[in-house]
Amino acid sequence: MKPSKIPRVVIYRLSIYLRALNSLSADGIHTVSSESFGKLVGVKPAQIRKDLAYFGQFGIKGVGYKVQDLLEKIISILGTERAHRVALVGVGNLGRALLAYKGFEKRGFQIVAAFDPVHCGKKAGKNGPAVSHPRDLPRLVGEQKIEIGIIAVPAAGAQEVADDMVKAGIESILNFAPVRLVLPEKVSVENIDLSIGLETLSYALKTES
Amino acid sequence: MKPSKIPRVVIYRLSIYLRALNSLSADGIHTVSSESFGKLVGVKPAQIRKDLAYFGQFGIKGVGYKVQDLLEKIISILGTERAHRVALVGVGNLGRALLAYKGFEKRGFQIVAAFDPVHCGKKAGKNGPAVSHPRDLPRLVGEQKIEIGIIAVPAAGAQEVADDMVKAGIESILNFAPVRLVLPEKVSVENIDLSIGLETLSYALKTES
Repeated sequence: MKPSKIPRVVIYRLSIYLRALNSLSADGIHTVSSESFGKLVGVKPAQIRKDLAYFGQFGIKGVGYKVQDLLEKIISILGTERAHRVALVGVGNLGRALLAYKGFEKRGFQIVAAFDPVHCGKKAGKNGPAVSHPRDLPRLVGEQKIEIGIIAVPAAGAQEVADDMVKAGIESILNFAPVRLVLPEKVSVENIDLSIGLETLSYALKTES
Repeated sequence: MKPSKIPRVVIYRLSIYLRALNSLSADGIHTVSSESFGKLVGVKPAQIRKDLAYFGQFGIKGVGYKVQDLLEKIISILGTERAHRVALVGVGNLGRALLAYKGFEKRGFQIVAAFDPVHCGKKAGKNGPAVSHPRDLPRLVGEQKIEIGIIAVPAAGAQEVADDMVKAGIESILNFAPVRLVLPEKVSVENIDLSIGLETLSYALKTES
């Protein structure tokens, strides 16, 4: 099976496995049974086996998974063993939150440029880059070897920002604006909707009462 | 089938359908074919039919879905036709971003109280509530009839905040801290990891090159 044929949801679950493995590793745990690991990530052991089988043979019968081995393998599958260079467009509250969020750097993503017409000239956060004007996006994407763009602007401006990113050569976009972007097929887009979690909770509240 | 037996992923997809229906409705579109709708949400028409079948009969053969009807039905399934009252703990960058995020209120969630030991006394954002000290959580959860808690504190403090929320009577938690919370079974938790989207993009970058 060609890597590109692997279902997106499998890649998504690999991210979840990675998060759990990192926390096991931080706790000094070297091996984990497939049952314990399944409980930890909320996925049935058989599904975990199936997900990992796309990439090779993992886990030892009667022992489980070796934490460090599986962790390194998943990092290599996801391609985060080297840092990806990221541009952020929108340095409002959400943009500043993303700049302050330590989880990105820890997992191999470095925000090396930030853009905002209002805040340009200032520093983006304590250790962040200086904020540039969006018109400098094409130049900085080239100079800074940026591969990924994060959109943290309001819905109304998101499509224009995405178009500018694509024109500047970015083909991977993480979109926080609550809008469906229309982009060429070669561009990968991940949408994060901060309210979806709340709707799931609302449903749980309803079925309890 | 009892409502509580409905897979979580179905509820998650209902949120996505709702988002698409809202945007169709905003564009003045009254009906949508199951094929077009499938493309819009990135889910196969057969899967959409299967998801909706948990809740009744939707869609008209040869016509598709009536946008407004389906929208109202999903809102009623998710239980967001009345506003849920939400408490936010952590008014740092992420907390302020969540306060400024218009998507919550639009979808039936109102942040009526905010807590932070550092920022207490100040207003949380332009139109936000005054920030209270976390010790006032139990009292305000009762007084303000709060049902949902959002955790926007660093990983190290998240478990303690979650424990305090549960002691105060909150049974639904949206957790942004990159840590797995250990909580009683009756408590529903949704975890949002801002970096999972980036990992999916990293994988896409890798398989392209």
